[in-house]
Amino acid sequence: MQGISAFYVMELLQRAKELEREGRDVIHMEIGEPDFPTPKAVIDAGRALLRTGDVKYTAAAGLPELRACIARHYQDAYGVTLDPRRVFVTPGASGAFLLAFGISLNPGEQVMMADPCYPCNDNFVRLFNGHTHFVDVDAGSAYQLTAELIAKHWRSDSKGVLLASPSNPTGTLLGGNDFNRAIEQVHSLGGCFYSDEIYHGLVYDGRAASALESSDDVFVINSFSKYFGMTGWRVGWLVVPDDFIEAAEKLAQNIFISTPTHSQYAALASFTPENMAELERRRLEFKERRDFLYENLLKLGFKIACKPEGAFYVYADCSAFTDDSFEFARQLLEQEGVAVTPGRDFGHYLADRHIRFAYTASVDRMASALKRLERFLCR
Amino acid sequence: MQGISAFYVMELLQRAKELEREGRDVIHMEIGEPDFPTPKAVIDAGRALLRTGDVKYTAAAGLPELRACIARHYQDAYGVTLDPRRVFVTPGASGAFLLAFGISLNPGEQVMMADPCYPCNDNFVRLFNGHTHFVDVDAGSAYQLTAELIAKHWRSDSKGVLLASPSNPTGTLLGGNDFNRAIEQVHSLGGCFYSDEIYHGLVYDGRAASALESSDDVFVINSFSKYFGMTGWRVGWLVVPDDFIEAAEKLAQNIFISTPTHSQYAALASFTPENMAELERRRLEFKERRDFLYENLLKLGFKIACKPEGAFYVYADCSAFTDDSFEFARQLLEQEGVAVTPGRDFGHYLADRHIRFAYTASVDRMASALKRLERFLCR
Repeated sequence: MQGISAFYVMELLQRAKELEREGRDVIHMEIGEPDFPTPKAVIDAGRALLRTGDVKYTAAAGLPELRACIARHYQDAYGVTLDPRRVFVTPGASGAFLLAFGISLNPGEQVMMADPCYPCNDNFVRLFNGHTHFVDVDAGSAYQLTAELIAKHWRSDSKGVLLASPSNPTGTLLGGNDFNRAIEQVHSLGGCFYSDEIYHGLVYDGRAASALESSDDVFVINSFSKYFGMTGWRVGWLVVPDDFIEAAEKLAQNIFISTPTHSQYAALASFTPENMAELERRRLEFKERRDFLYENLLKLGFKIACKPEGAFYVYADCSAFTDDSFEFARQLLEQEGVAVTPGRDFGHYLADRHIRFAYTASVDRMASALKRLERFLCR
Repeated sequence: MQGISAFYVMELLQRAKELEREGRDVIHMEIGEPDFPTPKAVIDAGRALLRTGDVKYTAAAGLPELRACIARHYQDAYGVTLDPRRVFVTPGASGAFLLAFGISLNPGEQVMMADPCYPCNDNFVRLFNGHTHFVDVDAGSAYQLTAELIAKHWRSDSKGVLLASPSNPTGTLLGGNDFNRAIEQVHSLGGCFYSDEIYHGLVYDGRAASALESSDDVFVINSFSKYFGMTGWRVGWLVVPDDFIEAAEKLAQNIFISTPTHSQYAALASFTPENMAELERRRLEFKERRDFLYENLLKLGFKIACKPEGAFYVYADCSAFTDDSFEFARQLLEQEGVAVTPGRDFGHYLADRHIRFAYTASVDRMASALKRLERFLCR
């Protein structure tokens, strides 16, 4: 457990709740969770399953029909033919990470990741007594690990590279051919490629490629939480290379038994045309919010080196106002009731100069937040 | 992954499904899952929550009201006062084991377990690069690790002892003062005590004590799956010693984010008097099945050294008929369509002389199974 830290934002969240109990209005822009409810089609499918009372274990790898649906989704969305036996349904993307590192990582091996990145990634690696090798990234590479950075930082004990496109916290993509080149680079070094694709679908400019378009020899982590709006249901998936099917099957049996049954049946309803149309409406609203927040933060004097193209985050440089973004976030919450996430939750590199804003609040709420933020900056 | 094996019963399950597709009637006595549907009060609570559409992440440690309910359950069922902050809601008992070993075990440390025992336990330990130290047990100690066995087998690198009462596969308890003495023994050696209590509530003679009656310095793993009839919902819990609250909080944030929200709200309905009355009716039916199966297996010539007092398993010695219980199970399935679990899924010690029968089928179905079994033995 040494080195596994709680998220700093938890301290702010707790304080936010105290303030709310005291009657203060807090605008939440710290939460990595869509504010939309789960789509109706999915809810209805979940309720229909519950009506049967038959909520037994499923196969460890997941409902066969859900694995088939997910495989078909790769055909529809990416033009990739995928054997459903390579798809493992997991308790959220968290389960997919556990499974991916559990079957591929030996004690002492290193996984390369960008700094900044999502903090749990490092902790999954630590859990299996591996080590994370953080590589500082900035706007020059859109906060992503490029083929060049991977080649430059590769070590003899490197096991592989984890890449998230779109990225949390920056919302940036590794676009066009650069993504493919990064995968080729990892493979030419003999490493494993772990592709975190949990924000796929939530992309507003350009296009997020799946690692499966480049190679079959990749681990792909995805989830029904973000784009599909099913956070609390805990359903994600992992695609493994052929050689890892047997290991994934064994480990899933042992560490999960199975993913929640009612959630899996509900997730089946995600891929209907009606539901996909609803998700597209939500995507367009996120895009509008992204534009609104991005432009207004720039006006206030935040620097945003890369306009975010996906996810629902803006990673803003607040060095014009402070050199301690955690303290900045604390005071902003205390004085104005606006909750944001400090950079240090995502790594070390320039972390104290950055704040992550989540646009998981409506434009109206964000407009209020920006007014409060402006007042805060003028003090 | 080396050393983590798939369950042997999976091969039989797959063959059973093939036979069923061919139109054969298979009687399932291999499955560790109650055949009853989830109780109506729980289903209704789950459906009511879904109706709101509000299936967001909960706190990593679980819904505060569910943690409070679980703590109160210890007061009601065991007379133990428990601080709800020590209760962590997890994705099934699997999640509780992950959390317990994740926060307490260092690479290379040993956890002592009985052979036979539930096969995943060893694999959770392996996952964190610990080692399992199996101690052969037999009817002389009711297939349990006693204080004497623990003292005799303790090593310098032992970290602790895992004890399951009632046990899977034997259904036996470590009763009366023996349980307390085992805990005291582990503590006097400076070890951690992990108490697997997932079959609590399903006890037909005597009484299963919680480790919390003996000490606050224990890890207790439990679940809504078995007694509460909620397998597919994936909700369990872990009680940790005070000193581990912070670590459990951090690790839960990182590896689960949260336990399924709708499942947690549904579980809240478990503790109502109406539901507890329904669970008591089911317990009495399990007791009737236990008596029926136990007596009839003895009549057929199986040896059962300890009458099982809990869970829903009979661990029967079949050495009068075979010295290869896996092959015996295979042929029993093939020739008579009765599925059981071979001893080797639970360890090595005398494993090929034992079969586990689960009484998760009605008395009528079991009567048919026993007729088929008799015919099989007479061939």
